[in-house]
Amino acid sequence: MIYFECDYGEGCAPAILQALEQTNLEQTVGYGLDPYSLKAQQLIADLCGLNSDEHKESGTLQENLWRERETAGAVHFLVGGTQTNTVVINYLLRPHQGVIAADCSHINVHETGAIEHFGHKVLVLPTQDGRLTAAQVQDALLQHLYDPNIEHTIQPGMVYLSFPTETGMIYSKSELQAISSVCRQYRVPLYIDGARLGYGLRSPKADITLRELAALTDIFYIGGTKQGALFGEALVICNPAYRKDFRYFIKQGGGMLAKGRLLGLQFLTLFTDNLYWQLSDHAVSQALRIRQALADKGYPLYMDSYTNQQFTVLTNEQMERLQQRFVLSVVERTDSGHTVVRICTDWATDPENVTQLINAL
Amino acid sequence: MIYFECDYGEGCAPAILQALEQTNLEQTVGYGLDPYSLKAQQLIADLCGLNSDEHKESGTLQENLWRERETAGAVHFLVGGTQTNTVVINYLLRPHQGVIAADCSHINVHETGAIEHFGHKVLVLPTQDGRLTAAQVQDALLQHLYDPNIEHTIQPGMVYLSFPTETGMIYSKSELQAISSVCRQYRVPLYIDGARLGYGLRSPKADITLRELAALTDIFYIGGTKQGALFGEALVICNPAYRKDFRYFIKQGGGMLAKGRLLGLQFLTLFTDNLYWQLSDHAVSQALRIRQALADKGYPLYMDSYTNQQFTVLTNEQMERLQQRFVLSVVERTDSGHTVVRICTDWATDPENVTQLINAL
Amino acid sequence: MIYFECDYGEGCAPAILQALEQTNLEQTVGYGLDPYSLKAQQLIADLCGLNSDEHKESGTLQENLWRERETAGAVHFLVGGTQTNTVVINYLLRPHQGVIAADCSHINVHETGAIEHFGHKVLVLPTQDGRLTAAQVQDALLQHLYDPNIEHTIQPGMVYLSFPTETGMIYSKSELQAISSVCRQYRVPLYIDGARLGYGLRSPKADITLRELAALTDIFYIGGTKQGALFGEALVICNPAYRKDFRYFIKQGGGMLAKGRLLGLQFLTLFTDNLYWQLSDHAVSQALRIRQALADKGYPLYMDSYTNQQFTVLTNEQMERLQQRFVLSVVERTDSGHTVVRICTDWATDPENVTQLINAL
Amino acid sequence: MIYFECDYGEGCAPAILQALEQTNLEQTVGYGLDPYSLKAQQLIADLCGLNSDEHKESGTLQENLWRERETAGAVHFLVGGTQTNTVVINYLLRPHQGVIAADCSHINVHETGAIEHFGHKVLVLPTQDGRLTAAQVQDALLQHLYDPNIEHTIQPGMVYLSFPTETGMIYSKSELQAISSVCRQYRVPLYIDGARLGYGLRSPKADITLRELAALTDIFYIGGTKQGALFGEALVICNPAYRKDFRYFIKQGGGMLAKGRLLGLQFLTLFTDNLYWQLSDHAVSQALRIRQALADKGYPLYMDSYTNQQFTVLTNEQMERLQQRFVLSVVERTDSGHTVVRICTDWATDPENVTQLINAL
Repeated sequence: MIYFECDYGEGCAPAILQALEQTNLEQTVGYGLDPYSLKAQQLIADLCGLNSDEHKESGTLQENLWRERETAGAVHFLVGGTQTNTVVINYLLRPHQGVIAADCSHINVHETGAIEHFGHKVLVLPTQDGRLTAAQVQDALLQHLYDPNIEHTIQPGMVYLSFPTETGMIYSKSELQAISSVCRQYRVPLYIDGARLGYGLRSPKADITLRELAALTDIFYIGGTKQGALFGEALVICNPAYRKDFRYFIKQGGGMLAKGRLLGLQFLTLFTDNLYWQLSDHAVSQALRIRQALADKGYPLYMDSYTNQQFTVLTNEQMERLQQRFVLSVVERTDSGHTVVRICTDWATDPENVTQLINAL
Repeated sequence: MIYFECDYGEGCAPAILQALEQTNLEQTVGYGLDPYSLKAQQLIADLCGLNSDEHKESGTLQENLWRERETAGAVHFLVGGTQTNTVVINYLLRPHQGVIAADCSHINVHETGAIEHFGHKVLVLPTQDGRLTAAQVQDALLQHLYDPNIEHTIQPGMVYLSFPTETGMIYSKSELQAISSVCRQYRVPLYIDGARLGYGLRSPKADITLRELAALTDIFYIGGTKQGALFGEALVICNPAYRKDFRYFIKQGGGMLAKGRLLGLQFLTLFTDNLYWQLSDHAVSQALRIRQALADKGYPLYMDSYTNQQFTVLTNEQMERLQQRFVLSVVERTDSGHTVVRICTDWATDPENVTQLINAL
Repeated sequence: MIYFECDYGEGCAPAILQALEQTNLEQTVGYGLDPYSLKAQQLIADLCGLNSDEHKESGTLQENLWRERETAGAVHFLVGGTQTNTVVINYLLRPHQGVIAADCSHINVHETGAIEHFGHKVLVLPTQDGRLTAAQVQDALLQHLYDPNIEHTIQPGMVYLSFPTETGMIYSKSELQAISSVCRQYRVPLYIDGARLGYGLRSPKADITLRELAALTDIFYIGGTKQGALFGEALVICNPAYRKDFRYFIKQGGGMLAKGRLLGLQFLTLFTDNLYWQLSDHAVSQALRIRQALADKGYPLYMDSYTNQQFTVLTNEQMERLQQRFVLSVVERTDSGHTVVRICTDWATDPENVTQLINAL
Repeated sequence: MIYFECDYGEGCAPAILQALEQTNLEQTVGYGLDPYSLKAQQLIADLCGLNSDEHKESGTLQENLWRERETAGAVHFLVGGTQTNTVVINYLLRPHQGVIAADCSHINVHETGAIEHFGHKVLVLPTQDGRLTAAQVQDALLQHLYDPNIEHTIQPGMVYLSFPTETGMIYSKSELQAISSVCRQYRVPLYIDGARLGYGLRSPKADITLRELAALTDIFYIGGTKQGALFGEALVICNPAYRKDFRYFIKQGGGMLAKGRLLGLQFLTLFTDNLYWQLSDHAVSQALRIRQALADKGYPLYMDSYTNQQFTVLTNEQMERLQQRFVLSVVERTDSGHTVVRICTDWATDPENVTQLINAL
């Protein structure tokens, strides 16, 4: 069987395994305070355009009393996406606040209620294609402000986006600017889940750079798990107001890896010699071959995606035939005769497998 | 100004104040273990048809080891509605479970996310008039069962209804039977929020008795706050499986009143000489006078309610005129020219005030 | 039987029942926004020396955007003590922070883990007589600051004291000043649980006034339940930094009484014509009669208390004899032959009952 | 510098890296449902003596309705220790319950209050050397049962032990049998944190096997992170009553690795050809060399440990001298002149480094 089911079906970019091997018996301190993690943090901060003044927190509440600590960095490495979302949202929200998110967002649908389990409501907004609009976000904020029973309802405390979304869609620069602008006007932080960030930024439709995205958000993460790492996500806290004591939250949330250098090493490797972007390009280009084939052969494009996830609608006959050789991901059955499926490529997708799929369509 | 804004604008039935006075300087034990509370609990258990075998828990998990305790009763008194909902839902659900509820339900909209703050997602189903259907509930349960990512999503762990709903609507006996039957088939407990239970059961459209309602639910509560008490709700745990250790949850949830007898005394008074039902009848009959007047004068009935809450749509001109003398509750502005309002009566509504409102319509 | 078991065995000061009766059928808005509550809040703010500039929050984070709201007051009324403690601690702490408290403190021992259930560790310090010292608090703060695994441990985020303590002891002004000074130096808020505040402030050993206590704390509460109200606690937020959005927390914590005026009316009555202080004086003077009798008859004073709670050690023979006519509270059995008991007076204690107890000793 | 600071300073056993490489580009399903994970689960279940009847859950609550699912296995793989402890404790406890644990236990001291953040109190018992006794546990259970304010206090809901403890100590078989017997008598589950399980079971003082330990506990875990894996812990649910829906908790707790096979592969490698035990033996034997040298040279043994952690007390002069070449872990300063230190070996410790340390003592 050939898998197009997800983007975490293989191991990792071989260069990562090589890095792990080369450093395997070195002794370092744990919990992400090792030299590899520090180096990777600096590298990512630079790539995101966080200058050193921003990178180092100055003047904390207890500046003359509490020792200066590593708890205040701009970049942190966590193990997985659900964990990262939980830790960030738990950090940003006060107990009476909720997170504005799209109906199909990962935090609303596929994290077993982890956000709620940590005490926060997901304030769901409906979407056509998985993307929120600035107007929607503003309406939700205003609706709360003018609610006569204001304190009987949850206060919107942050906005969560995915780039790309669960539906493979990306925001244009101007769309992100508009949302970011609303967030700053109403002083609610903007957080972007970048589990597939590379597959979004390297889409031919993307008109925004990593650095521009960083400038528009308060916190976002650069996905590793789905982008060529064994595991790991690089969290970037662009807004220095949200750095203090962050490491406590990572530890409390079960996300502080004892052998933290494993995360540092992986991101160091991914962001050396543009590996991350090359792996992203590969996945996107294979996905676009599938997109073209779907269009050519008259399959409906269920989402207008130019990233590594393609969505189409199959008849039962088509479904049955393809399932004999390929593993696809079932999104939903729209009626008794049709099924929406997702076809995923990733950094490791074999072009020959794509050719076979195209031929089988 | 004359208030038709809510059903908790006055104090309490005079008989309750009298009871408080007569017993004021008596000394009793606290935390609801006093003779008045015990008597009121027995009275309510009897009214609900819980026979003594059901009322007393037999055979707990640790029956020969842990002392038999008052933690296992069928009836408990709590101070308010949000608190009661929070305690019950926190008791019934495991961390990976959520509560199925209508979109406009109190727990989803007006409890400042208390359910989520205690760790549980509200699994929202859309409704036309605030009422869930048995088919909807079953679909939601089946959808989870057949989810390929089952453990990535929240497991539905209970069903929450209101009787009447926030929209003043009630369920017929057969509708409740159908929902109850689905719940029992799939082994998820059914909980009914009865903040206005009397106003529902005494509606001319109600075809179900207190005892029948008790037989169909696992837990429900008989509202006091909105029904003539100073404060307080009587929780009835019909299913003995959900009685063990319940008092721990009341205490942990901040709902265990030190002078618990105040709650016992109030419910004892309310359920003596049918006072509760008389107070309910009064509110309903005054609401029906308003309903009739609305219909007669051509105001649209926004909800087809036969309980103490009436809903209509006012033009700006009507709104402005009525607001000069009456306080109504704004539900929402449907467009720039119209407003949905709620008109509430209660146990204390002065018929003369209703006459004035009718004349002003 | 005559009860000296607790200080919540009777109803309330008759003047309160009178006030409830006189206003019973008035219509007011709910949730504590009624005129009685507002008047009582102002009265208490004045008594505590909070001037109007402090009392009104100026300049919130979103001052030009979010409407000015009642969520920002200095005085709030809640129903009970556990609820008040939970709401305050949940408001003050971030998820990675805990509350420093004495080993025997109410939040550590008798709230069914409500603090932990809301997500926070109680950082317990050992005490001789229930009182923390400034040195202890400072040591605990410094120990965290110099912990090499700082973010693997809970950050002390506030200090909780009781005045008087569960053991009937009070802090002197200089002791409180010292603790307050440490808290301000290390920027952790100081919260005082005043469930029996009147019984503490009116102790002959007290050398601090209400206003002085308010000046030394960030938040404290004036107990009503044990001091002559039917129920209710008046929370005073002395530090304006902790007022924003407080009402959300009350609602979320299940502490927002629908008929909020019941709380306002009670505190208005208690603080009119010095009633609160007179009731406090009564309880203390009756307790001191018992203290004197215990001393005269050679009973050991288990705690050197000059407030309404007296503690002594009884032999089995004494215990058995007294229990035939009096209900005392068992604190612990020290060995097979002796029991520590608590003898409580309150605002309603009948002096004749005290005489009978003294004669029976 | 030579590190004896911790047991997670190096990468992993070379055989693990080899296994990762060999399988790197294979495509498998995610989330631990891949063939490697299933094979490793079966292998570990067999090693622990869980026969197939126990391994498969029979008869769930909803047996005929809910599909049979992988949520019910006996062995699960999680990423780290804090996460594992949090997930297990959150699974086992109800909201009103707490976990009995030693004062110095990892969950009480070094998990940033994760247990409390998930809502549960750690019920701390004092210890001499980090080990609880059966008598202590029984006393704590009985104290709760006979508490007159039972529901005002947290109910002990489980017992947590570490094997070995944070202090390097192990329980004898008879000690564990006694504790297990108390737990079963009072029906509270027993959970053992085995972060260093191999270093405990291979201690020359150990008189218990893996299988015997499994038979005495309800749940325990076999540590990987500190025992030669890159990361990962193998959780063994011995008591089938605690298997239902467990995978929901892993996902909700952020512990479900997308590329779950990484965990399966590691444990498969560790438990092939006795690698796990060989690695354990290595660490223990090197630690015993240090223990002997400490004794020979007159250093006090702070704990009587025969596992991979050795504890001694250094004078300032000794401390200063050793710190020039070796990284040790500071436990506490006992007075101005002395420091308790921990010296850790692990699966990768170079015997030559141990020789150097011994010579430097």
